[in-house]
Amino acid sequence: MAQACPQSAMPRAGLCGGRVLPLLLAYICYLLLGATVFWLLEKPAETESRDQFQLEKLHFLGNYTCLDRWALEQFLQVILEAWVKGVNPQGNSTNPSNWDFGSSFFFAGTVVTTIGYGNLAPSTKAGRAFCVFYALVGIPLNVVFLNSLGRGLCTQLATPEKWKEWPLRSQLLQVLGLGLGLTLGSLAILVFPPMAFSHVEGWSLSEGLYFTFITLSTIGFGDYVVGRDPSKLYVSEYRSLAALWILLALAWLALLFSLGPVLLHRCSRLWLLVRG
Amino acid sequence: MAQACPQSAMPRAGLCGGRVLPLLLAYICYLLLGATVFWLLEKPAETESRDQFQLEKLHFLGNYTCLDRWALEQFLQVILEAWVKGVNPQGNSTNPSNWDFGSSFFFAGTVVTTIGYGNLAPSTKAGRAFCVFYALVGIPLNVVFLNSLGRGLCTQLATPEKWKEWPLRSQLLQVLGLGLGLTLGSLAILVFPPMAFSHVEGWSLSEGLYFTFITLSTIGFGDYVVGRDPSKLYVSEYRSLAALWILLALAWLALLFSLGPVLLHRCSRLWLLVRG
Ligand SMILES: [K+]
Ligand SMILES: [K+]
Repeated sequence: MAQACPQSAMPRAGLCGGRVLPLLLAYICYLLLGATVFWLLEKPAETESRDQFQLEKLHFLGNYTCLDRWALEQFLQVILEAWVKGVNPQGNSTNPSNWDFGSSFFFAGTVVTTIGYGNLAPSTKAGRAFCVFYALVGIPLNVVFLNSLGRGLCTQLATPEKWKEWPLRSQLLQVLGLGLGLTLGSLAILVFPPMAFSHVEGWSLSEGLYFTFITLSTIGFGDYVVGRDPSKLYVSEYRSLAALWILLALAWLALLFSLGPVLLHRCSRLWLLVRG
Repeated sequence: MAQACPQSAMPRAGLCGGRVLPLLLAYICYLLLGATVFWLLEKPAETESRDQFQLEKLHFLGNYTCLDRWALEQFLQVILEAWVKGVNPQGNSTNPSNWDFGSSFFFAGTVVTTIGYGNLAPSTKAGRAFCVFYALVGIPLNVVFLNSLGRGLCTQLATPEKWKEWPLRSQLLQVLGLGLGLTLGSLAILVFPPMAFSHVEGWSLSEGLYFTFITLSTIGFGDYVVGRDPSKLYVSEYRSLAALWILLALAWLALLFSLGPVLLHRCSRLWLLVRG
């Protein structure tokens, strides 16, 4: 979040004279804008799926006349409680477990990255208490690790000190190589895996990209999650691989955010040199 | 995420000679530790609720003999699809909407803060596309706003430049006042609202604190969310108020993270002065 407030550099701009009040207004307006658009887009769709479900329910009650409304509502309550505890109501006890080791590893990954899909969430008191302390240490560790990895790779790849002494031709080649590497790496890490996931999960490409964005922005709604379709038989390592991909992609984003500005700076510098 | 890689300050420690490899090992070990503990804690609980649900299902099928297994599984499929689209299967069409303006505002707040509970998620293609672009702008705006608010308040409250020229007595009073203010503010923002939410939602105090932690760490599993119990009638402004509380509490945390180190530094300095 915020850095410790600097002891010298900052001018003493008052809260209201400074940037805070305009930012607050922009922020509130942005939230109101979002609320309006989501309301306009989602409300009609919700009404439609709600009406459709009520029809299906009436149809079901009409077909099976031994069942009364009250009994069905009671049973729906049971189903929802099971669902909230992470039990898939369909099928039988041989469904794959949500908490085998691979899934637990996936879950630990979604905690420290603060993605928190929520399809898996601890349901026991001990699990919840452990989750809180696990996150208290794990989130800072994740931030430090990703930052350090991004910066380490950045220093390794960008070789900041000696670069300016290189001949112009080598400088050009290095910048081109770096740009090519970043592009190929981004394809390999940010584009191909979502395509592979879409293929395995039966999502469309746009759904795969939506999943990738919602995951890597750490929003993690949990509406699209890899390895959670109960009708599919996954390879046992699939969820662990997905967790590793998420960590790798987040590290890659950290690298892009730290290398991107350096690369842009060098490009503009070389451009000026070449133009004379 | 990472800062742009510094052009001068960083020593050229190699990736393997530097801090990255030990950090990577620590990170992987931490994930494996978490996976093991969650697996040990949650697996038995899952097995139990799963067995219990299968019993309830058999019981239900036994009570209503006009219903066969296949029809029930089909109906369960319909229920799950409705649930995923955000329709609460219980009750009838008069259930409060998930996408009225207050809820949409709440949703917009969970997008820009990257909490993303996921109880609400856009279900239309247009809604998803808008959500991606909304988050692309909104997440940086949220970070800039929280940082600026934290730093603005910090500068306002901590008065960094003139503080050292004050008489010792005033310095002491100011530090005490600041400490008291932060404590009272934390109580008012981080402790009382969760207690109020727990009261309204019928959660235990530990559940309320768990909800607060999972929310303010921006993990947002969505297992505990305010204003989502379909059996409760909420005041219409309840969800908007909850969204404002979340933003206020995140801003307060940003302030704590920026003022805390300053306060600690001054305390130690005063302690040294007073001790002689
Ligand atoms: K989430
Ligand atoms: K999240």
